[in-house]
Amino acid sequence: MDDDTARESAQSGDSSPAADSGGEREEQSGADSLPPFDEQTTVPESSRAAGGTVYLVGAGPGDPSLLTVRARRLVETADVVLHDALTRDTLIDRIPTSAEVFDVGKRVEYKTPQSEINDLLVSHAEDGDSVVRLKGGDPFVFGRGGEEAQHLAEQGVPFEIVPGVSSVIAAPGLAGIPLTHRDLSSRFTVITGHETPDKAESSLDWAAIASEIANGSTLVVLMGVRTLERNVSALRTHGVDGDVPVALVEKAAWEDQTVVEGTLDTIVDVVEQSSISAPATTIVGDVVSVRDDVADELQDFDPV
Amino acid sequence: MDDDTARESAQSGDSSPAADSGGEREEQSGADSLPPFDEQTTVPESSRAAGGTVYLVGAGPGDPSLLTVRARRLVETADVVLHDALTRDTLIDRIPTSAEVFDVGKRVEYKTPQSEINDLLVSHAEDGDSVVRLKGGDPFVFGRGGEEAQHLAEQGVPFEIVPGVSSVIAAPGLAGIPLTHRDLSSRFTVITGHETPDKAESSLDWAAIASEIANGSTLVVLMGVRTLERNVSALRTHGVDGDVPVALVEKAAWEDQTVVEGTLDTIVDVVEQSSISAPATTIVGDVVSVRDDVADELQDFDPV
Repeated sequence: MDDDTARESAQSGDSSPAADSGGEREEQSGADSLPPFDEQTTVPESSRAAGGTVYLVGAGPGDPSLLTVRARRLVETADVVLHDALTRDTLIDRIPTSAEVFDVGKRVEYKTPQSEINDLLVSHAEDGDSVVRLKGGDPFVFGRGGEEAQHLAEQGVPFEIVPGVSSVIAAPGLAGIPLTHRDLSSRFTVITGHETPDKAESSLDWAAIASEIANGSTLVVLMGVRTLERNVSALRTHGVDGDVPVALVEKAAWEDQTVVEGTLDTIVDVVEQSSISAPATTIVGDVVSVRDDVADELQDFDPV
Repeated sequence: MDDDTARESAQSGDSSPAADSGGEREEQSGADSLPPFDEQTTVPESSRAAGGTVYLVGAGPGDPSLLTVRARRLVETADVVLHDALTRDTLIDRIPTSAEVFDVGKRVEYKTPQSEINDLLVSHAEDGDSVVRLKGGDPFVFGRGGEEAQHLAEQGVPFEIVPGVSSVIAAPGLAGIPLTHRDLSSRFTVITGHETPDKAESSLDWAAIASEIANGSTLVVLMGVRTLERNVSALRTHGVDGDVPVALVEKAAWEDQTVVEGTLDTIVDVVEQSSISAPATTIVGDVVSVRDDVADELQDFDPV
């Protein structure tokens, strides 16, 4: 199952299956603010993807403009690109037609098993291809980047890590919520709302998490919409004040990014009465109040 | 003091003062793998920095290739750029000479007071300039992005957040250490090694932090070299096993990136016998062991 791989990405709200790696890309790109990738023309030789190498690349929250320059150059010059469910069509559409593109993260219908992804990475690299494994957010945060790296190393395939903009940080940020703030919080904890199926939910140490929040830490929950009620209840049970502010950010950096706010005591009702659905990012802590201070002048991120 | 602002950035190891905003940029750029910025020629109109607006932009760990595409376009088209100590000369060198560049983060000699930075942001925006505030890592993680946003909103200045690659995640990643891993850790906590001077050190809830690590969470400490001994001792006192692996990453994404490894029981000695110095990122948890599995095939990030 590729559930984990798609996890952080899916964060950003891609509930539709990613585009097929078909040939309809040319028509779609070009008119809007981000030009199509440069189709292997303008990238300096030393920045090009190298044959026989796998690049585990963070794609950021899904908008092409939040790729790093390095990631973009690798995507522009790769022989093969394997991407997650994560990735927005606007990004996939820009992959040069010269690359072979695999959607290995479809969340609807077939989910590519991790072993199959591993095999694809290795076999293409062994054929001498340059291979970009494009993962939502950062490759090493709630994806299976670590496992892929281990498999590649085991098989003797050279690989590179290209860090990306993690939605752990980008989702609150785009909503005007700083994870740390001199007066409000000097630390944060990140958990995932649904852990892997083979782990008991109890592996979350709610007493410790609650204690940290009560002491001024910020909590970020990825994919926590379905488990919101359980999480809120666990925090309340372990002594976190009902007035602590909570926000949910859905589809960060996407056209229909939505933010709702409440407190631990009200957020379950607020979300129920909203159109927010999974996946979204939940932020718990005093830093959420900064959004109220800044929302009037905060310009929306303008997705491609 | 701009200490906080420079904090995450400084992370990446910039101990030398950033370049002056002088006129020697042209000579330095061009020869290596990343071409100079496009000097306001090729950026589509809708992606250009807008007059009267402040952009709080994450610069990533300091290498120009780890800017996002959006950040790069804003830097290319801004009238004014205010940058931190963080930022590598190779990045500063690429700011178009048409922009007015302020180094407001010098860590040696004069440190620009936050109030002065705030005033510069507001006055330039009110003059109709497009203003990029270039912050190391992500603007909202251990910088003063939140405070700057609040000040801008208070003054009625429109602003935008452009998330960046945080060294919280990039430093371990580039060292081959995934913050989460299906078999090893499904969550992580981030603290800073030195909190703001007006906060008692005791505000860190070591019992909770230790409990989380003992339960399989990963701990990331920014700027924790000087406080390493205290932190290790606090974790041991609160029951964390002495065998838990620890790594320090110095100058992530820089030419002389250095990684050392040990355990809670050995790391203080290991660091003492190494050349590692502040600032660096410390990672505590079982995920550190992944580095041992992958280091042989992990290609170094190739900084510009």
